[in-house]
Amino acid sequence: MNFVSDHLYGIHGTVLAAICSANTALTSPSYSADDWTARAAKLMNGVFERDVETRLVSTGTIANAMALASLVRPFNAVLAYCDAHIIVDECGAVEFYSGGARTLGIKEPRGKITAAGLEARLKGFVRAEHDPVPSAVSITQSSELGTVYTVEEVAAIAEVARAHGMKVHMDGARFANAVASLGCAPAEVTWKAGVDVLSFGTTKNGTMGVDAIVFFDRDLAAGFAHRQLQAGQLMSKSRFLGAQMEAYLTNDLWLDNARKANANATRLAEGIKDATDLRLPLGAEANQLFPIVSRRLYDHLIAAGAQFAVWPGVGSLIDQPSEDEVQIRLVTSFNTRQEDIDAFIAAVHAAGVQ
Amino acid sequence: MNFVSDHLYGIHGTVLAAICSANTALTSPSYSADDWTARAAKLMNGVFERDVETRLVSTGTIANAMALASLVRPFNAVLAYCDAHIIVDECGAVEFYSGGARTLGIKEPRGKITAAGLEARLKGFVRAEHDPVPSAVSITQSSELGTVYTVEEVAAIAEVARAHGMKVHMDGARFANAVASLGCAPAEVTWKAGVDVLSFGTTKNGTMGVDAIVFFDRDLAAGFAHRQLQAGQLMSKSRFLGAQMEAYLTNDLWLDNARKANANATRLAEGIKDATDLRLPLGAEANQLFPIVSRRLYDHLIAAGAQFAVWPGVGSLIDQPSEDEVQIRLVTSFNTRQEDIDAFIAAVHAAGVQ
Amino acid sequence: MNFVSDHLYGIHGTVLAAICSANTALTSPSYSADDWTARAAKLMNGVFERDVETRLVSTGTIANAMALASLVRPFNAVLAYCDAHIIVDECGAVEFYSGGARTLGIKEPRGKITAAGLEARLKGFVRAEHDPVPSAVSITQSSELGTVYTVEEVAAIAEVARAHGMKVHMDGARFANAVASLGCAPAEVTWKAGVDVLSFGTTKNGTMGVDAIVFFDRDLAAGFAHRQLQAGQLMSKSRFLGAQMEAYLTNDLWLDNARKANANATRLAEGIKDATDLRLPLGAEANQLFPIVSRRLYDHLIAAGAQFAVWPGVGSLIDQPSEDEVQIRLVTSFNTRQEDIDAFIAAVHAAGVQ
Amino acid sequence: MNFVSDHLYGIHGTVLAAICSANTALTSPSYSADDWTARAAKLMNGVFERDVETRLVSTGTIANAMALASLVRPFNAVLAYCDAHIIVDECGAVEFYSGGARTLGIKEPRGKITAAGLEARLKGFVRAEHDPVPSAVSITQSSELGTVYTVEEVAAIAEVARAHGMKVHMDGARFANAVASLGCAPAEVTWKAGVDVLSFGTTKNGTMGVDAIVFFDRDLAAGFAHRQLQAGQLMSKSRFLGAQMEAYLTNDLWLDNARKANANATRLAEGIKDATDLRLPLGAEANQLFPIVSRRLYDHLIAAGAQFAVWPGVGSLIDQPSEDEVQIRLVTSFNTRQEDIDAFIAAVHAAGVQ
Repeated sequence: MNFVSDHLYGIHGTVLAAICSANTALTSPSYSADDWTARAAKLMNGVFERDVETRLVSTGTIANAMALASLVRPFNAVLAYCDAHIIVDECGAVEFYSGGARTLGIKEPRGKITAAGLEARLKGFVRAEHDPVPSAVSITQSSELGTVYTVEEVAAIAEVARAHGMKVHMDGARFANAVASLGCAPAEVTWKAGVDVLSFGTTKNGTMGVDAIVFFDRDLAAGFAHRQLQAGQLMSKSRFLGAQMEAYLTNDLWLDNARKANANATRLAEGIKDATDLRLPLGAEANQLFPIVSRRLYDHLIAAGAQFAVWPGVGSLIDQPSEDEVQIRLVTSFNTRQEDIDAFIAAVHAAGVQ
Repeated sequence: MNFVSDHLYGIHGTVLAAICSANTALTSPSYSADDWTARAAKLMNGVFERDVETRLVSTGTIANAMALASLVRPFNAVLAYCDAHIIVDECGAVEFYSGGARTLGIKEPRGKITAAGLEARLKGFVRAEHDPVPSAVSITQSSELGTVYTVEEVAAIAEVARAHGMKVHMDGARFANAVASLGCAPAEVTWKAGVDVLSFGTTKNGTMGVDAIVFFDRDLAAGFAHRQLQAGQLMSKSRFLGAQMEAYLTNDLWLDNARKANANATRLAEGIKDATDLRLPLGAEANQLFPIVSRRLYDHLIAAGAQFAVWPGVGSLIDQPSEDEVQIRLVTSFNTRQEDIDAFIAAVHAAGVQ
Repeated sequence: MNFVSDHLYGIHGTVLAAICSANTALTSPSYSADDWTARAAKLMNGVFERDVETRLVSTGTIANAMALASLVRPFNAVLAYCDAHIIVDECGAVEFYSGGARTLGIKEPRGKITAAGLEARLKGFVRAEHDPVPSAVSITQSSELGTVYTVEEVAAIAEVARAHGMKVHMDGARFANAVASLGCAPAEVTWKAGVDVLSFGTTKNGTMGVDAIVFFDRDLAAGFAHRQLQAGQLMSKSRFLGAQMEAYLTNDLWLDNARKANANATRLAEGIKDATDLRLPLGAEANQLFPIVSRRLYDHLIAAGAQFAVWPGVGSLIDQPSEDEVQIRLVTSFNTRQEDIDAFIAAVHAAGVQ
Repeated sequence: MNFVSDHLYGIHGTVLAAICSANTALTSPSYSADDWTARAAKLMNGVFERDVETRLVSTGTIANAMALASLVRPFNAVLAYCDAHIIVDECGAVEFYSGGARTLGIKEPRGKITAAGLEARLKGFVRAEHDPVPSAVSITQSSELGTVYTVEEVAAIAEVARAHGMKVHMDGARFANAVASLGCAPAEVTWKAGVDVLSFGTTKNGTMGVDAIVFFDRDLAAGFAHRQLQAGQLMSKSRFLGAQMEAYLTNDLWLDNARKANANATRLAEGIKDATDLRLPLGAEANQLFPIVSRRLYDHLIAAGAQFAVWPGVGSLIDQPSEDEVQIRLVTSFNTRQEDIDAFIAAVHAAGVQ
């Protein structure tokens, strides 16, 4: 009953097979000059229905930090949701990679920044040169609270950003889950809505460890291979990153996995939402649930062997836990076991009848 | 009637005379090897009753950022009051000089962090390696809201810091005003209370532009001359910084100036505190006042030609302005004119009787 | 006939099998808390006959840059061979990760810095605070010119370093090849000889992509997990890095592979050393050869389909190519094909008889 | 007899008077919003016969590092003469301010890089993404060896730079001396010849401590006020920087001073050039001389009380000191005493007749 994170689960069989297959070539060019990386890039063009610049790196944190470092200068600021991964979970990676740019948070009720919230936050930059210049906004899709930005919401944020001379970054650590949830074309919710650069995550959704930075505006990627090398992120055996990404994008494996993960979350949500001592204020939009549970239920679940995180962030402002409650996070993966979901649901209800 | 900031006022005559006098030497060694700098360092030892490492730089922002860069590594965090100058007014200087360390704020009611507030904030570092390591706390003396830390308050904060392996920095942009207000020995409220490094500001209190970084623990200053050079802060004509500091420290000019500035603030506070449409929730502890005034009074004062800032920060949590009110900041200097103080007081009361 | 680099070759079967095996666990803790990483760390302790701090990262450039960033401050300098990988091949990674420290080269005849050369270079720091403070020396084992430092050479360099308050880093991108060549215990040529931190490379020698930073002095690793996270180098699916390293260290696979690679180089050297139009001034100490060949031979080899690099560095000072010659680099791997070696030898001799 | 550096001499009387005069205003706007700074900027437009962006900072190192940080990204390289101040005398300031960009040297015979030398150096960037991208060239006018670039030489270098997509920075720590030497319009040898950004030094030539960064292309200065604030280089009492610069530019004081300094060097050169045991391979183009003297003469001069530096750099390649010789540097200032020059000349000749 492991609902701690989707990244605890392993590699999808098809992806692992691709790694093995790539190893049958005796030699291969390095530093992204290999055929697998080339084919993956071509597939990415297909996914987004346009020519994009795809750069493969090893983690989502690097994808975010290097994408944003391409958009900002040291005296700039990046605006994001107050508990965005880039603000509270990456140990200052943006500050480090950018050489000093600040990440500044916007408090919002549902884990998603809004165009109005962004506009209001920008009005707070009243200190002239004492303030950093806000030059990028980063939105997480799906969000740190499991919610999903609609195409319209992204477009509205991007419009505000554009009006203030800011670039738009999307942290897509769970981009697949968002697209699967929306059922829209990837292009619709990214560049067509005004996104400039996307961290296209795959690691949580079936690969061993590769994330892509997708530049929709190729000018923003000028010199990026050098930046990658300097950061130690241009791998010599790049074929194995390329192979993972190729397999991930082939035959919509990425969307299939995400649909499964989302379906698991939906099933879990359906099973628990009417339980005693539990509320689901944000519903089940992708593959993360944030129930507010009583301490009693919490203790019962732990005793039953369930594994999950207590949410350290502010959570949903529309419904906050009381003193006797705690907000937890449940994450499902494409290969979360059905019996684990059933067992968790049973444990929740068992607690209710004790 | 200029109460915008003490740094708008000029150079004290004695300090300017010292600059002129230092120029009578045909040549002088550079890069802090001059006699004036040596004498200033010796005077600083006297001020603090011990051997300290004194390094002269050109602004308070540099003093803060370079002092803190000596205490932290890029994956560390500096804790301070939520509206500390280093957090909201220095455009990310700490992030830049440290190469990525984060400044994280603690919200407190009176502009001063408390030992309890620090302890509570430290409990929030629950994300393991995802969080930066809190390695320094910075306290502003006197604070951004004009309040002054008592010796006991500083010691209590330092004790918490020490228990968590953190260093203590004091942003003393208005250190003189704080010492003058406390009436204690400078040593009492700094190293004896647990402060490791002090930004000893002078620019707001009568010099042309020189601040000292005072390292009470000299080991923390290892290699600092190189850091200064690299930052472009080891001046060739250092005698003119040394001369300013020497004059500033001689015959307690620094304390005399601060006492005058504080007295001006006190006089101003006394004159306005009972006025209609005005409250002074934080009193007059040093040389800054933060009245909450009605919009009507605000408009009247502007019309009367008064100059001051509307406070962009959170202000005092113990008494927040209503919708019809605004929090303003009034800063006095050692050479604020008495007639300006009188005129401002009169304007405040004139508004009340209209 | 691919002798461009050992990193063009793939993953050793045993390592790939370990990746596949690690995937059979449904879930596993992340961020280096997994069992594979723990076992790899234990094996590393065995390799070095002491308790060491082992941190896994994804490339050799990151290993070098993050190891050195742990040893230096922004106003420091790292000394290394003039054509050291960290100076000429990593696009300023040390400068970036350290936030400004400089890498400064020492020209030496055989690709290895010497104690005398280091001592002489240190005498050049005569500019006081205008110079960065030399705080680390980095030696590449085996070197960029394929030579191998003896235990005595390392110890002599470390002694000079120690006398000047400097730390010693070893860039062991081809550490296995050096140890295999020396036939000594890994401990002898590292910490027992005075090395503080080692970049323990594996990627060129049979893994998919994992290098270890081995801290012999654990104090130097304080806070390193945070540094890793900030750099995006604490992988969520860390079990797959751990599994690679575990397999690599088990049953001396790392040394077996290195011995094979070295033997391939020796065989190649033996086959070509007496050829017309070719000299091997530096012999065959590990798995890299740097022949000086005539332009005629060079053209012939290219025409015959051989792949290799023209060396862009200064090469061996004891024997420099003439105008009509070119210095090339031939690298062998554990799985370089014997027929390719034979074909290359034949091509060299065929050119000679034309 | 102090010929160590021009920056050892003090403030010109007119400049000091301007500081005093600026202090007569009770208050003044801060952070470069003052009238003196505005007038200085206007005068700078006049100097360069066009609208330029003038930013005042406190040292030449900051001017260089912040100017270059505006031109490069962390994965870029700045090319300059091998012993350029930015490479050997600023403790890695460019690396620090740029967050990792490298400064790479070009060895040239007369202290000046040449268009041909630059072109040749650029051909050395053969390592693809392993090399930083050369994005700026920095030329020092007058040079570190006291030579002066002609307008044609600057234009030729700028043409090569432009062809390679590089920007051109001029380190004008002794710009006045170069212009005085050339007798050309400042515009001719800067923007009209292809210079993008100039560090306009004044401190060595009569001010107390203020250098200007002059952006000829204002787009390069976008956001610069924030960069200044973040670096702690936006001074609160900016009127005193502005006043110095205003006085320095008024009535050609800057050129008068430079002409005097140059004349002093010429007079010194004339007096010593025919002496025994002394050669002046580079002549006397501005205000620095680099004689090669015998050890015997060197000892004699020291004994006679002369003060000067032994040159730690490579010096002129056209005439290198032998084992028994040493290259020294003699710098003259606008207020070097004539009797000191005479005394030095006498000492040189006295040594010859002993």
